Amino acid sequence: MNVFINGRILPEEDVLIRASDRGFTLGDGIFETMRSQAGRIHCLDAHLERLRRSAERLRIPLPLGFSELPEALTNTLVANDLDSGDAALRLTLTRGPGPRGLPPPAKPDPTLIISAAPAPKKNGRQIRVCLVGIPRNEHSPLAQIKSINYLENILARMEAEAQGGDDALMRNLAGHLAETTVANLFLVIDGIAFTPPLEDGPLPGVTRARILTLGDRLPCAVAERHLRLDDIAEAEEAFLTNSLVGVQPLVAVDGNAIGNGRVGPYTRRIKSVYEESVFSEVS
Amino acid sequence: MNVFINGRILPEEDVLIRASDRGFTLGDGIFETMRSQAGRIHCLDAHLERLRRSAERLRIPLPLGFSELPEALTNTLVANDLDSGDAALRLTLTRGPGPRGLPPPAKPDPTLIISAAPAPKKNGRQIRVCLVGIPRNEHSPLAQIKSINYLENILARMEAEAQGGDDALMRNLAGHLAETTVANLFLVIDGIAFTPPLEDGPLPGVTRARILTLGDRLPCAVAERHLRLDDIAEAEEAFLTNSLVGVQPLVAVDGNAIGNGRVGPYTRRIKSVYEESVFSEVS
Repeated sequence: MNVFINGRILPEEDVLIRASDRGFTLGDGIFETMRSQAGRIHCLDAHLERLRRSAERLRIPLPLGFSELPEALTNTLVANDLDSGDAALRLTLTRGPGPRGLPPPAKPDPTLIISAAPAPKKNGRQIRVCLVGIPRNEHSPLAQIKSINYLENILARMEAEAQGGDDALMRNLAGHLAETTVANLFLVIDGIAFTPPLEDGPLPGVTRARILTLGDRLPCAVAERHLRLDDIAEAEEAFLTNSLVGVQPLVAVDGNAIGNGRVGPYTRRIKSVYEESVFSEVS
Repeated sequence: MNVFINGRILPEEDVLIRASDRGFTLGDGIFETMRSQAGRIHCLDAHLERLRRSAERLRIPLPLGFSELPEALTNTLVANDLDSGDAALRLTLTRGPGPRGLPPPAKPDPTLIISAAPAPKKNGRQIRVCLVGIPRNEHSPLAQIKSINYLENILARMEAEAQGGDDALMRNLAGHLAETTVANLFLVIDGIAFTPPLEDGPLPGVTRARILTLGDRLPCAVAERHLRLDDIAEAEEAFLTNSLVGVQPLVAVDGNAIGNGRVGPYTRRIKSVYEESVFSEVS
């Protein structure tokens, strides 16, 4: 595997981070994961816009021009012979090395890493989640930022897997459903696909946002709405979204089937329309 | 500077982390900061116990025996000629490299780093804080763990410094005072030094815990109690505690003096008793 680091592409084993990098010492960084097909990166502009917004909020500068990012991503794909098949990209940006203590250095020397790998073969897999007690904090500024502070989600995931689930379903502090540890949630109720509003604390997912814009091409209306535990029992279908696997059927919560426990027609159709929309897009 | 990494001590520039280290990619790690004088580490047992408890909760194994940690810390001091003066130590433990995704690897290869530096010269400095809106989440399992997920605190610190403060005072989600971004809080009210209980979300600070055990040696009673914004105006004195600087006078919040705005007699005396208690201790 070859990895991009601050303008160079090197063999993975030569891509090393200083122990004083604030990404490593303080979680002072952000990331994006993206999927590509035949060298085209799905929803690239949306990913770069989220990255730009997060970096600006945290005041982390880029070590290269923002407009150079698409080429850096493409070069990383090419360097790994992944520009023809399906690939997963991860871009990580940290504030770089710093002296002891919280205050950011006046002139950060940020670290930008891009890695690529064959895309995960999870397409169509049915997901079963477990509810966990670890809350998603909708009042944190980090709820809107894809930061590398993932330890709450790791704990939630460990708890769910210990209960036999594929992933954890997290509620926010008000008790509303928020998201899983790696995906946004949609419940289909009375023929409408509802997803929690951003004020409820889910990450502003790129796939989630894309689906909300597909309008008439979808088989049903999609809308934001608070979702509660009781809504799961009312749902005919459910699905999860993220950038790597797109739309994934969610078929059970804590061992209880959602709807008839099988992949529903809305989910199947929304998945298909979403894939058409990203596969046909020229990045 | 020479740095300990997984059993070896190397020049800082040779201590490099793989870009796939979960500490760097997901914030999947913990740390401790400690102060030493003449090679003796203050409250060493308490720091190691917190580390052990946190590592156990996160199921991060140590790359060496727990009983080997004191020697590793001492060796790091010696390797930097810091075993005679005042020093600051930082121990970082991450789950080590892992493949893409949240689930921890079945057999982690953890990363343990120990660095040492001359102790900060902040003794006696008077601190002025600013209140920030970023909350401390008392409902997070991370409230009790000194993890490397410090981005909320970094944002809080940046906000406070932009307002001219030395540090940020954070409230929890119930509106109670919790802590600053790097220290526990004590308010002296009616001759009693109160600090927020752990259920209010402050980090279980080692210095805080030590002060709560000093009993009769202190000039006043110390106790845990919910503290609210209104309590600041009632306080005769206030101070902050952490392992690196011990007891520090807190003299103003948002530009408003606490008490008469000067270092108070209780603070001075508690600082002195605390220092005697740790300086006299053989680690």
